[in-house]
Amino acid sequence: MSSIFTKIVNGEIPSYKIAEDDNYFAFLDINPNAKGHTLCIPKFEIDKIFDMDEAHYLGLMHFSRKVAKAIEKTVPCNRIAISVIGLEVPHAHVHLIPLNSMEDIRFQKKVQMSKEEFENLAQEIRANL
Amino acid sequence: MSSIFTKIVNGEIPSYKIAEDDNYFAFLDINPNAKGHTLCIPKFEIDKIFDMDEAHYLGLMHFSRKVAKAIEKTVPCNRIAISVIGLEVPHAHVHLIPLNSMEDIRFQKKVQMSKEEFENLAQEIRANL
Repeated sequence: MSSIFTKIVNGEIPSYKIAEDDNYFAFLDINPNAKGHTLCIPKFEIDKIFDMDEAHYLGLMHFSRKVAKAIEKTVPCNRIAISVIGLEVPHAHVHLIPLNSMEDIRFQKKVQMSKEEFENLAQEIRANL
Repeated sequence: MSSIFTKIVNGEIPSYKIAEDDNYFAFLDINPNAKGHTLCIPKFEIDKIFDMDEAHYLGLMHFSRKVAKAIEKTVPCNRIAISVIGLEVPHAHVHLIPLNSMEDIRFQKKVQMSKEEFENLAQEIRANL
């Protein structure tokens, strides 16, 4: 069965897309720790990031850096944090989280956003890519 | 003034070293979230990871992957998590954290270890590099 992220890549589940290339895909987390919280994933399914071959792992980190710089231009924050955990969805993903305090990386405090807010934010970040 | 991490790189502050090359340095976090919690840093001082030029950023992520694989061979865990935050020490650092539950990446629960435990663990991880 496809992972939920593969369904997002394939458009079977809608997402607020930020960026895409041949191998990688970025979209807003719909249960964000902070406004601008984005997930960067490989298009192919693999559970653990360090099980990716070196070229694809470095490709994902390169892609994530481009996305992070666009988020940083868009969302007021101290900096963009990186978090790779993976205990829930078995499809490697890099969390990019606009950071102002440690609360933003604990995955406990969550921010509510409307569909329109998500759409507008995704558009603004895409414009800064 | 040198950052605390530069003092560690220079040996002015002792550390439990895991790995080192021309540009990067890895050592055990002495206030670990979990046993095996390691920091990977560039030897040069820079505050934010995404302000590193692309080659050095990718170099740090490549170095971190090698260290993560050695930790994973050494410490029983579900996987190795990545966390880059940087609100405390203004010298970019990649946290590599053996992960079993979300508590391990929240930087709230801490593990006590003796000097001997740190030394033995560092030696075991180095042997798996």
